[in-house]
This record gives sequence, structure tokens and C-alpha cells, in this order.
Amino acid sequence: MRWIRFSTAGKTGYGILEGERIRAVDGDPFDGYAPNGREFTLDAVKIEIPVVPRTFYCAGMNYVTHIREMAAKGAVTPDIPKRAEIGYRANNALIAHGESVMIPADATEQVHYEGELVVVIGKRAKHLSEADALSCVLGYTIGNDVSERSWQRADRTFWRSKNTDTFKPMGPWIETDFDLDKAYTTVRVDGEVKSRFRTGDMLFGIATFISAMTQYLTLWPGDVIWMGTDGTSPDLRSGQTVDVTIDGIGTLSNRFVKETA
Amino acid sequence: MRWIRFSTAGKTGYGILEGERIRAVDGDPFDGYAPNGREFTLDAVKIEIPVVPRTFYCAGMNYVTHIREMAAKGAVTPDIPKRAEIGYRANNALIAHGESVMIPADATEQVHYEGELVVVIGKRAKHLSEADALSCVLGYTIGNDVSERSWQRADRTFWRSKNTDTFKPMGPWIETDFDLDKAYTTVRVDGEVKSRFRTGDMLFGIATFISAMTQYLTLWPGDVIWMGTDGTSPDLRSGQTVDVTIDGIGTLSNRFVKETA
Repeated sequence: MRWIRFSTAGKTGYGILEGERIRAVDGDPFDGYAPNGREFTLDAVKIEIPVVPRTFYCAGMNYVTHIREMAAKGAVTPDIPKRAEIGYRANNALIAHGESVMIPADATEQVHYEGELVVVIGKRAKHLSEADALSCVLGYTIGNDVSERSWQRADRTFWRSKNTDTFKPMGPWIETDFDLDKAYTTVRVDGEVKSRFRTGDMLFGIATFISAMTQYLTLWPGDVIWMGTDGTSPDLRSGQTVDVTIDGIGTLSNRFVKETA
Repeated sequence: MRWIRFSTAGKTGYGILEGERIRAVDGDPFDGYAPNGREFTLDAVKIEIPVVPRTFYCAGMNYVTHIREMAAKGAVTPDIPKRAEIGYRANNALIAHGESVMIPADATEQVHYEGELVVVIGKRAKHLSEADALSCVLGYTIGNDVSERSWQRADRTFWRSKNTDTFKPMGPWIETDFDLDKAYTTVRVDGEVKSRFRTGDMLFGIATFISAMTQYLTLWPGDVIWMGTDGTSPDLRSGQTVDVTIDGIGTLSNRFVKETA
């Protein structure tokens, strides 16, 4: 089942996506819903981010090849995490499928994509065992953890390298029936495949993260956990379009545009 | 003017606090409001966190004595930030004035307070100059950036050292008329003064942070910026109460309770 959040005629709400058809609902997938009889075709609506998270979690270094390649670029020893320690990103940076990533005029050419699986929490959860961890998950969507690498190296925090406005595309929708074992993540730039990796090839899996996190913190409906990326990205140029596809979910597509000073 | 967010009879909303009397409003201070004729006394309501922020910003190392004393405790050279680079905290950890900080059973004795001035954003803002930066501020409240120092040293991120549930008391209300130049922050443990510093003695001031941040990101109504702390805290014991007072705003009071395994 696919949950889509969309706007039409100035109103934003949720619907169930079946092929190209949206059956709109009153309410939402977190607190309850009922079909309201209105239907739309996908190409007639504006797709919105699937949820405005209460807390925006991000696993960071969670695929070994990515950690090794990033370390090699910086000529440092790979620092492979020993425990599932979650990080954070910021809501101001979220944009929807189809919206443009705006690269600030003072950014360097080192603007990179990171295609990521996103876990969407459906139920309040604390103290979950690994065996029970997935019981709080509503479904899955896709994220692009856009990064300006010179700022990432120079700054004390990720505030502008990863949280500049528009640097966090998320969408296009939430898929509740997802087979992680079969899925690959494929990233295309202007249609050409640049990265491809097994989505499930994580250092610490989803259940491991959720169980570790919920020993100390409460997950809330609508929270999202971005699971990290593998491989590395070429420098992206203004005008290029990045498509992140995860098998069984869909494709998140965003154009990159450099601002002029 | 003081904005208070409170619950009574199962309903949460905003009111204007005058002395001990609350004049309830429909709406909120961000999107507009109108007094609804209902009045309550302060002691008859449950005080809630003043806002659930869209993004929860935190300045971190922003008072020089704190940076020097923390470095001395770790026997390292003080690393004084050269630019105003904002950090983040997480909404799951927020609790209101009067609620208890619950220290996990596996925490060490190194649980510390950090009394902080909190800036509450009232208007959407981007690309503000320092001269215009304060125009987006609604008012000020108080935060206690509770930290478990052994986790802070051991972990790759602040996920449990600073974002464990209940580790971010915020409140008791928002004061819109605040004279930073005159204010001191005083922290008491069970009534005894343990820390006292000039609230305005920051490395980078509020206008500097807001101007720097909004060159890259949009501030939204309800966002909060915690401005950092000075000095250090003793180890806190279960049953102790920490009061953070900022002159002209009020006192944020929370009891610390250690969970049993």
C-alpha cells in the first residue's frame, strides 16, 4: 500500500496511491483515516513531502564502502562505527519529489547526492527489542542527503553542509509493503547510472537502530530515520537531475540549480 | 508580555500570563490569536513546553568559561569556535517546567545541568543582516541542556548523552520584553546557588547566530535556538531539583530522578 501526501486546489492531505490514481482520505496514516470519496490522477496534483517529521533522524556512516571511499578522498583512516549511534538532520531542508535543490552561490563544486532508504515511524515506541523493532514502522520512502563537502570538512557541525534549505529531498511516497532483501538503490544523474548498491547492505540494520534508539528515546508517529548511503557521488553541476530509485518503492527525482549571487 | 502554553481539562492552548492570572486565547502567538474570555490561575493549570519546535537549534560551545572548564576536565586544549555554527537537539527529549528528568538506570553519576537562554522565533526569516536579525524573534524562554558526560565522550553523536527522553526541560513561558544586557543566569540545586553568569556574555550573540544561520536556512515560527551555557555543573543526584533562573524571564524547575533497572 502506498501513502501519498499531496496538494490540490490549495489543500494538502493524504491519499492512497493505486497505480496512477489517488484515493483521498480524511485524516492521515498515523492517527486514523477514512476515504472521503475524492479521487485524483497522480499527474494532476502537487506531490508533497510524505510527512513533516517530529524528529528527523539520520544514521550517517552506515555502509562500509561509503565510509572507505569518503576516508580515501580525505586521505584518512576509515573510522567504521562500532555501535548504532543515530544522528540528526533538520526539517528546514526538506523538499518534495520534483522540487529543485538550490545550491547557494558561495558553494563549491563539491555538491554530492547520497541516496538513502527512509524508515517512517507509525507508532509510538520505547524499549523495543530487535525482534519487535519493526512493529513501530509504517513504511518506507526515499531520501537524498545532499551534501556540500567543503563545508562538511570545514565546519564544526553539519548545519550548512547538509541542512541548507532544499538539501533534503524526501519522497515521493510511503510504501508499506517493502522487501528490503530484494531491493537495490540506484542513483542516476541525467538518466545515467552513477551508483548502485544493495539497499540492505547496511553496517547496522533497521531493527538494530530502532532497538538501540528506543532504549533511551521515544519514537513518535511521523518520525523518520534515514538509513545512510553506499558509494560516493560525482560533483553535481547546475541543471543536472538526480533520480534515486529504490526497488519496490519508486523514484525520487530532483533537479539541482545553482543560485546566482 | 508573557505567553504561556498550558493544559486544563484535557485541552492544551495558549494564554497571556499577567502575574498569576492566565487570559486564555484561541489561536497562538505565531499565526494569530484572540482572547476567548476564559481565565485561569497559574496554580490551577498544567504548564506545557512553550512550543513544539519545527527545528530545535542549539548553539553548543558559546561561553568561553564553559569551553575552558570542559576542556580542563578532559585534559585537552580548549577549542574555541571561530564562527557561529549552529547545532541541533531533538524534540523527543523536551519536557515542561515541573516535570521530572528521568536518568536512565545505566547512566553514570556524571549527569549535569546546563542553564541556557532560549530564543523563540516568531516570523519566517531568511537572509537577515545582523542589524535586522532580531526582527524575527517572538521572545525568550529558558532551557536546561541536561547531559550525561560519559556518553558525550564515548559516543560518535549526542543521541543519548543529550537527547535521552526528558533531558531537555524548556519553559516555563515565553517573555517578549527581555533586557539581555541586565540579565544574569542563576542555577540552583536544591535551592543552593551553584552557577551564576551574565546571560549576555556569549561568544557569538543572538543577532550574529540568526544572521549567519539565515544565509543558508529559513527560520520558521516556533523554531527555538538554545544559546549555550557558561561554567560547569556538579554531578547531580537522584531526588535533587535544579532551578534555572534568568532575570526578567522566570525560573525553570525540574527534579532529577534516577530510574531503577
